[in-house]
Amino acid sequence: MEDLHPGVADPVMDTMNFLNEITLNYPEAISFAPGRPYEEFFDTEQIFTHLRRYLDYLAAQGRSAAEVRSAMFQYGPSAGLIRELIADSLRVDEGIDVPAESIVVTVGCQEAMFLALRALMAGPEDVLLVSSPCYVGITGAARLLDAEVVAVKEREDGLSCADLEVTVLAERKRGRRPRALYVVPDHSNPSGVTMPLRTRHQLLELAERLDLLILEDSPYRLVSPGAQVPTLKSLDRRRRVIHLGSFAKSLFPGARVGYAVADQTVLRADGTTGLLADELAKIKSMITVNTSPLSQAAVAGALLASDGHVCESNAELAAHYGDSMQAALRGLDREFPAARRSRLGVSWNAPSGGFFLTLQVAFRADDDALSRSAKEFGVIWTPMSYFHPDGGGDHTIRLSTSYLAHVEVEEGLRRLADFIESEVVAAQPHG
Amino acid sequence: MEDLHPGVADPVMDTMNFLNEITLNYPEAISFAPGRPYEEFFDTEQIFTHLRRYLDYLAAQGRSAAEVRSAMFQYGPSAGLIRELIADSLRVDEGIDVPAESIVVTVGCQEAMFLALRALMAGPEDVLLVSSPCYVGITGAARLLDAEVVAVKEREDGLSCADLEVTVLAERKRGRRPRALYVVPDHSNPSGVTMPLRTRHQLLELAERLDLLILEDSPYRLVSPGAQVPTLKSLDRRRRVIHLGSFAKSLFPGARVGYAVADQTVLRADGTTGLLADELAKIKSMITVNTSPLSQAAVAGALLASDGHVCESNAELAAHYGDSMQAALRGLDREFPAARRSRLGVSWNAPSGGFFLTLQVAFRADDDALSRSAKEFGVIWTPMSYFHPDGGGDHTIRLSTSYLAHVEVEEGLRRLADFIESEVVAAQPHG
Repeated sequence: MEDLHPGVADPVMDTMNFLNEITLNYPEAISFAPGRPYEEFFDTEQIFTHLRRYLDYLAAQGRSAAEVRSAMFQYGPSAGLIRELIADSLRVDEGIDVPAESIVVTVGCQEAMFLALRALMAGPEDVLLVSSPCYVGITGAARLLDAEVVAVKEREDGLSCADLEVTVLAERKRGRRPRALYVVPDHSNPSGVTMPLRTRHQLLELAERLDLLILEDSPYRLVSPGAQVPTLKSLDRRRRVIHLGSFAKSLFPGARVGYAVADQTVLRADGTTGLLADELAKIKSMITVNTSPLSQAAVAGALLASDGHVCESNAELAAHYGDSMQAALRGLDREFPAARRSRLGVSWNAPSGGFFLTLQVAFRADDDALSRSAKEFGVIWTPMSYFHPDGGGDHTIRLSTSYLAHVEVEEGLRRLADFIESEVVAAQPHG
Repeated sequence: MEDLHPGVADPVMDTMNFLNEITLNYPEAISFAPGRPYEEFFDTEQIFTHLRRYLDYLAAQGRSAAEVRSAMFQYGPSAGLIRELIADSLRVDEGIDVPAESIVVTVGCQEAMFLALRALMAGPEDVLLVSSPCYVGITGAARLLDAEVVAVKEREDGLSCADLEVTVLAERKRGRRPRALYVVPDHSNPSGVTMPLRTRHQLLELAERLDLLILEDSPYRLVSPGAQVPTLKSLDRRRRVIHLGSFAKSLFPGARVGYAVADQTVLRADGTTGLLADELAKIKSMITVNTSPLSQAAVAGALLASDGHVCESNAELAAHYGDSMQAALRGLDREFPAARRSRLGVSWNAPSGGFFLTLQVAFRADDDALSRSAKEFGVIWTPMSYFHPDGGGDHTIRLSTSYLAHVEVEEGLRRLADFIESEVVAAQPHG
């Protein structure tokens, strides 16, 4: 019998396993749990056209057949093959103007997070700040690396810079060094909140003043309709922001291609200086060596198909997700008219995009409640408490609208309303 | 200026960078350095046929078009999509008979190593033993995880169980727990040595007696001609061996697909027990989430092409590598006939397969010597000292024969002989 590193025991993972079991046990239930992309926009044949397009592109760039073969079949550079194409897309789509050298292509955004944490969490006094509730990928990576996480609670309109400053100063007082803040500024997972432009400017100013880095995770921009608030990275004049990107929600989830933009200067242990991206690539060489050239080729083909304008070619997809979110918000309005809303103690936020929204309820939205919901009402959701690294969210539900067809959203909300009614009635004292 | 985690400063990486620079600066030199696969057996169009074959296979298995699309485009299970196919291939090719559930598909073998170390190195007293000289991927992964590495020096015929036992007992005496031994039993990287069958049996017996796990890395079996000595895993009756596999040397390097066979029972932090493979998959979910389904599909297509018998379909490739090694050994015999061999103090081993062989010389085979060799003689090799985590190998050279055509091997050895002559002459006292 072998014992294990304690970081492997991940409480979040265990709760997620509970959710998976519920989903398996009630296959007929409508599930607002998975943050998976909607599938109808994908087509298996796209794989072949994407790959062919990239191979043709390499040939058109003057690469010989042997060079193309080598690019596809051999190990490639740890930092990635398609950095120029990603840099072009960031410039056109996001106004992020960085040299290709500051990009590292990763196995999904998750690896980018892991690399950034491994590089930055330099000593036992270093702590990672997270805007909470928080995406479980970052807390899971931190746990594997034995890195301490400190939560800054989101308010209704998201992270408050004043709260962040208080936390940073308190951490310093107890001898810790807050090293970086992880945040999903756009249509956050799990809350759905978007950080206003004014807060973004304040946050950058604060990061400079407090000597803090920002890990900006941005998976939901390309899948949200209309113009987006500028990224922190596009507003970053002091290299305070490490921008983490993903094609997993938009172009091709199964390719598992993400990236980090890391144009910071670093001081190496031997006293020399270098680019953070180079250090991330070195770390990557000891974890996955390089991101599959085949996967990179598929994503590059998709980027080339959109002529660099991922936003534009993605507009149809983004409109679909926007419609799903609107359908969910209309459904909530219909199921919970003002009087019922007030009687049941229900409220929710109204994200303009992304995959998630937050629903407040008057009862404990825990695993037991989830079991009753799935078994008796045929509807599944995620307890928001899963996403609070230091407690909280006990009366909050995360609803994901991304994976369901609009009619499923409507039927699911009818069931959810019945479930909520039942919970509230059960909690009332017998008359 | 940002400081970095000390594990990022990798001395091996720095030496490798030196080697890369030498290679860039002397593009006309013949290089015995890279352990890259020979490219002539790959063909870019294979990518399309492999993928199509796997998609057809899924359809033939009764999967609907929507299910196939979902398998390719969505996130998949962290443990992998193609575990059954890998289990079949292990049974047919290697006599390793394990349930598919004990396999985790990884981003190359490197990720499999990283996952195993993260799971097993449970506390600060745990140490990883390595057979030294040692593949740099494992020491790099250990450094990133702050895991201590203790080297057991290889003898001419490889690892000695007596040496291993002495090391284990010495480590225990100083309060350490030797947790696992990493070894490449077949045509090792870097030494080229193969562990005899008798030693394999002894090692398994010793692992059981000393309560030690064995990380068996096996990338060079499929690229070596003729019958191979049985893997440790196929001889393992006590679940002492975690077998690490790779398709990166054989079927498709650019797919970046490897795997771990981990059928051990583990004790979790909460007191429950489980399968080590499941724990590795959990860790993976926090590092790369899952291995690209696209990459897995390409490898699966290649596996299906060989009807499960990778060994057989790979025979031509293995024969080529075997011929390269034989060409190198003949070339060494020709360049260094007995008298010259003795005068120059040169000797080498004679691997029957794999990519690497070891050459002993009478001078310091360090970076300075490498520079002279590249600049003045147009031949590049790897100092064996790069592969010794705790010193050694100063008079030893690693020669890789995998990437070169046979004529290049011959010309390269002529140059190498001239270089060695020059070094020995320079070292002699002036008469």
